Amino acid sequence: MTGFAATGPHVLRRMNAAAVLGALREAPGGTGRVADLMGATGLSRPAVTRALNLLAEAAIVDFTEDTAARVGRPAVRARFRAERGHVAGIDVGPHKVLVMLADLAGTVRAQRRVSVPRGLDGGSLADLLRTALIEAAGAAGVVPEELWAVGVGTPGVVDRERGEVVLAPSIPGWAGTSLLAELRAWLGCPVHIDNDVNLAVVAERWRGETSENLLFVQWGERIGSGIVIDGKPYRGAHSASGELGFLDLVTPIDAEAPHVADGLGSFERLVGAGAILRLAVERCGEELRRALTAGGDLAPLFAAAEAGDAAASGVVETIAARFARGLAAQLLVLDPGLVVVGGGVSRAGEPLFEAVRGHLRRMLLVPVELRVSALREEGVALGAVRMALDGAERRLSASLLS
Amino acid sequence: MTGFAATGPHVLRRMNAAAVLGALREAPGGTGRVADLMGATGLSRPAVTRALNLLAEAAIVDFTEDTAARVGRPAVRARFRAERGHVAGIDVGPHKVLVMLADLAGTVRAQRRVSVPRGLDGGSLADLLRTALIEAAGAAGVVPEELWAVGVGTPGVVDRERGEVVLAPSIPGWAGTSLLAELRAWLGCPVHIDNDVNLAVVAERWRGETSENLLFVQWGERIGSGIVIDGKPYRGAHSASGELGFLDLVTPIDAEAPHVADGLGSFERLVGAGAILRLAVERCGEELRRALTAGGDLAPLFAAAEAGDAAASGVVETIAARFARGLAAQLLVLDPGLVVVGGGVSRAGEPLFEAVRGHLRRMLLVPVELRVSALREEGVALGAVRMALDGAERRLSASLLS
Repeated sequence: MTGFAATGPHVLRRMNAAAVLGALREAPGGTGRVADLMGATGLSRPAVTRALNLLAEAAIVDFTEDTAARVGRPAVRARFRAERGHVAGIDVGPHKVLVMLADLAGTVRAQRRVSVPRGLDGGSLADLLRTALIEAAGAAGVVPEELWAVGVGTPGVVDRERGEVVLAPSIPGWAGTSLLAELRAWLGCPVHIDNDVNLAVVAERWRGETSENLLFVQWGERIGSGIVIDGKPYRGAHSASGELGFLDLVTPIDAEAPHVADGLGSFERLVGAGAILRLAVERCGEELRRALTAGGDLAPLFAAAEAGDAAASGVVETIAARFARGLAAQLLVLDPGLVVVGGGVSRAGEPLFEAVRGHLRRMLLVPVELRVSALREEGVALGAVRMALDGAERRLSASLLS
Repeated sequence: MTGFAATGPHVLRRMNAAAVLGALREAPGGTGRVADLMGATGLSRPAVTRALNLLAEAAIVDFTEDTAARVGRPAVRARFRAERGHVAGIDVGPHKVLVMLADLAGTVRAQRRVSVPRGLDGGSLADLLRTALIEAAGAAGVVPEELWAVGVGTPGVVDRERGEVVLAPSIPGWAGTSLLAELRAWLGCPVHIDNDVNLAVVAERWRGETSENLLFVQWGERIGSGIVIDGKPYRGAHSASGELGFLDLVTPIDAEAPHVADGLGSFERLVGAGAILRLAVERCGEELRRALTAGGDLAPLFAAAEAGDAAASGVVETIAARFARGLAAQLLVLDPGLVVVGGGVSRAGEPLFEAVRGHLRRMLLVPVELRVSALREEGVALGAVRMALDGAERRLSASLLS
């Protein structure tokens, strides 16, 4: 008799509510008239109205007058109450933690970025993460315990099913710790985790390039890539695809290549943000060197190169040639047609990428289009927000259907 | 009224015939009783019987007595007449042409392998190909003009839709020639063409490893790879994925990398069959050197290494380390879980591949299983046979339905 009861009018009404909510979330501005929702769901006017009332009871929907209607009685517009709940997306990197707080429509309400001192242990990293989350939540007017879901992006290899970091050579004390369990216990909401580059790809497809086939390269202190094939992320047999950062283009071919699982990968040590900074400090003039050493940021280097500084331009050219060598290795294997570069170094500007394109042309058999991500270094946190939203939506649907 | 006629009883009978033929081809030994075919197609006994009679009229099916039936009147077994037609699969490489003749069940009836002298022009290559095809067909008891379909595998980039070789740097006079058009005019049957490594992958999944996800590496004079994801070949935006042979691990990182589209790729010049031969001739003792120079074949090298010859073992170790470096670049990006190595060098035997596995372990973040293809250097021609069979099957179905 359970099957009978499960398809009774009560359950059907809740399924309709979930469908109407889905249509409302997808609608421009998260609002719609009953007629719009009938069209989007295929439900009758009474069914849509009943669903909206159920959603209004749950405080997920409210109503406004439709000011666009000029003739007769003003129509009522239903509105998805995106402010009803919040999610957090957290980018945990070797040098920084970035926390984004967003409402249920995915609009970012606050964000907080903190530097991670070198050599921090797991416990201190946990403290730092908690503080950043409390501050970002505060700025958005909520407390962390009210979050509906949290997404975390991290370098390394992640077991998404079990929600654990399996391997993260670049962040000591992160893999295998109880940090995620503690976060879950504290927040009392689901905490999802995924590889940072995978999340940058998710963000790219949500808010940036929507192409069904692309290679996304995250270029910061670390370098990794995400592969999208026919609109789906390709992750590999152990969720460990795209590890461009470990490509070794430096060890002479007949010398023994060093073991990989040891901090930054060979390609990261060659052209990662830290390597670029070191090269610039080594080669550039006194003034620029001071600016680079003080800020630890690459912006002055790229600005100087654009302004015609010869040493800075030389560094940019060297980096472009090196990066193109590694990227070419991946492009020869994948022929993706489109490459999108995100991450901190993507802020470098066109001169760097125009030089990369020039080198690639010589190294490839077929052309590739190279674009710079509009999301820059916020992609990972934004992708973590998207992952948290997916979690929140599943919770919402489940609560409507239970 | 056309639509009406097209779904009339005449057409339905022919569609049923195509379905019964398909079931028969899939059945063990290409034979089946009426009852088996009813089960496989979901058709009634009269429908299956009518279909078999139609196929017998077309001489595609004949009947034998079912010797397995011990009680009562012996049942009749229908048999797919695989000998009714033949297809050819041709592997066109920089140094050899291999032609395989197979019946409609894909059983190879004859094959012919000829060496391609260095620097052969397009016209001479065409002559050589024609002669090899005539000889192989003769050995199978047919003339080329009777072939139902031909498949051709070639290195380089292929436009499969237009059936043309777009780019084949390793075979001068091959891309953009009228050779394929001449072949089509001569044979009067469809001539399909695909990249050689793609065909080796097709063969591997047909007669070798059936895993849904794998990376296949063709290791001969040339080196290329084919990617299978969820059972489907991944070809890339320009059908140019898997070009491992052009990976440059040799040019020092800050030197200008040479332009790629110029004969063999950098990785092929490093560890392709020709490079192995040169290295062996350079490093091995007088006797082995003579054997290698005379035959142009690597077998004596690998035999000597297995027998404990120090110089030969040294060459095998060097090649293993170099090959692992290039393969690692691709594995870091793809995390395929399984790698299958085919092509001429795959005959080297376990000592080479055990050394490759050892090097890979140090260079990868996650494990990979490396197997040697059972098809060895015949994969490309066999894949071309499979492609030709697909073409023949489409012709057969079309003729039944017209």
